[in-house]
Amino acid sequence: MRTLTAQDLSLNTATVSKQWDLAECIDGCARHGIGGISPWRDRLQECGVDRAAKLIRDAGLGVSGLCRGGWYTAEGALTQAVIDDNKRAVDEAAAIGADCLVMVVGGLPEGSKDIVGAREIVTEGLGKTLDYARSAGVKVGIEPLHPMYAADRACVNTTKQALDLCDQLGDGIGVALDVYHIWWDPDVADQIARAGKDRLLAFHVCDWMNPTQDMLTDRGMMGEGVIDIPAFRQMVEAQGFDGLVEVEIFSANNWWTKPADEVLARMIAALPVI
Amino acid sequence: MRTLTAQDLSLNTATVSKQWDLAECIDGCARHGIGGISPWRDRLQECGVDRAAKLIRDAGLGVSGLCRGGWYTAEGALTQAVIDDNKRAVDEAAAIGADCLVMVVGGLPEGSKDIVGAREIVTEGLGKTLDYARSAGVKVGIEPLHPMYAADRACVNTTKQALDLCDQLGDGIGVALDVYHIWWDPDVADQIARAGKDRLLAFHVCDWMNPTQDMLTDRGMMGEGVIDIPAFRQMVEAQGFDGLVEVEIFSANNWWTKPADEVLARMIAALPVI
Repeated sequence: MRTLTAQDLSLNTATVSKQWDLAECIDGCARHGIGGISPWRDRLQECGVDRAAKLIRDAGLGVSGLCRGGWYTAEGALTQAVIDDNKRAVDEAAAIGADCLVMVVGGLPEGSKDIVGAREIVTEGLGKTLDYARSAGVKVGIEPLHPMYAADRACVNTTKQALDLCDQLGDGIGVALDVYHIWWDPDVADQIARAGKDRLLAFHVCDWMNPTQDMLTDRGMMGEGVIDIPAFRQMVEAQGFDGLVEVEIFSANNWWTKPADEVLARMIAALPVI
Repeated sequence: MRTLTAQDLSLNTATVSKQWDLAECIDGCARHGIGGISPWRDRLQECGVDRAAKLIRDAGLGVSGLCRGGWYTAEGALTQAVIDDNKRAVDEAAAIGADCLVMVVGGLPEGSKDIVGAREIVTEGLGKTLDYARSAGVKVGIEPLHPMYAADRACVNTTKQALDLCDQLGDGIGVALDVYHIWWDPDVADQIARAGKDRLLAFHVCDWMNPTQDMLTDRGMMGEGVIDIPAFRQMVEAQGFDGLVEVEIFSANNWWTKPADEVLARMIAALPVI
């Protein structure tokens, strides 16, 4: 495995979403020597896409991803509004030079119990976004989300399922793997090997707290929980992954309450357990 | 599919665990015309195994399972104490004539991040219990638990993984499938078909609330949530499953606060959505 330094890390802006706006995140990364950033779209739009692109470029940061496209099921069917919003997301990803557009595909439509149907909507939507993304030179990274989010956030829930979609949809699409979502999966080692370098578009880290108090906002700093993070880094690097290691932590009662500079320092201090 | 009646239902005692002891559950099932029961071991031991067996027999109830054996990782390694406790569970299941001993296999050992190692402990433990269970004429039902319980309750998290274990361990072992744990799984239909009648030892129902407020105790009555329960019943019945449909609901803020007779009446009222 590589010996990681702060330059190999990327700050997902959600990690300090209660403390800093995007400009502050960019400045913070530069100050701490963190090599990359991954903005959420609301923060990007708030900053202004062109201004953000310039700030990121001037700070010399890599962009490990843009969070997030997807939500294909948000309106119950694949509407033009949903398709158009994903096109805008592709444009934004291109503007900031993101390694990929991370896709959180959406859960069950309101009132629906039809997860099979939801997955069909998602497949069709991904295909449409991918067509546009290819023309824009943007890679699309499907993020399989933990099965506990199948109803409300994403009905793509395993690495195998995401790769099956990639097989179906062709070039230009891969997976964005977050250890939080995949650590439990008995099939994950085989699937990471199946993915191969070209489809491993992003690698996200945080930790699974045991016990977990909240299904969304009780994620841990690397080392605080039970995930064998180095085992996963080894798996992706064995396939040739050499991109930024993105830190994305939702933590309402801990990390979101601390000074952001302290959070970034702790990310760097956690390098030995990544 | 069969047309279900109350006689096809089984009450898992956890559903009214805050209201009734085992004797009251048995009496309640008989009064409501519910055909079966599935006791938890603490309630069984509190009642006394021989007395419980007689009460169940006298009430004419089926026994869809005994909850639960397993927890092989509880002491960090497969200790004699853990093995012996599982033998006692087998004896208890035999004494009450349970269709199977339901296995919640255990999560990560205290302080461990080694889920692969935990799964090895579980496999060895299941093998030992199975040897004993065969001699006692008891079937062992592995319950794959939702991946959100991988750390703290069970590191067997998919139907495929459970069936792989069954393949490895041989006769006398199968799966106890709860829609709550498996509804999200994109591979579940194929795996239920793979299981076949002989390995479909139990079928549990409740519902997934959207949103879910608590990872353990916010399960819904059938129909309250987003699971297409009839789709799952169709899958297991297509394989020949004709056993009791067991209702197991953990619901701290709703069903555990209501009079137990009301809960049983609602179970029966939910028959059309099972």
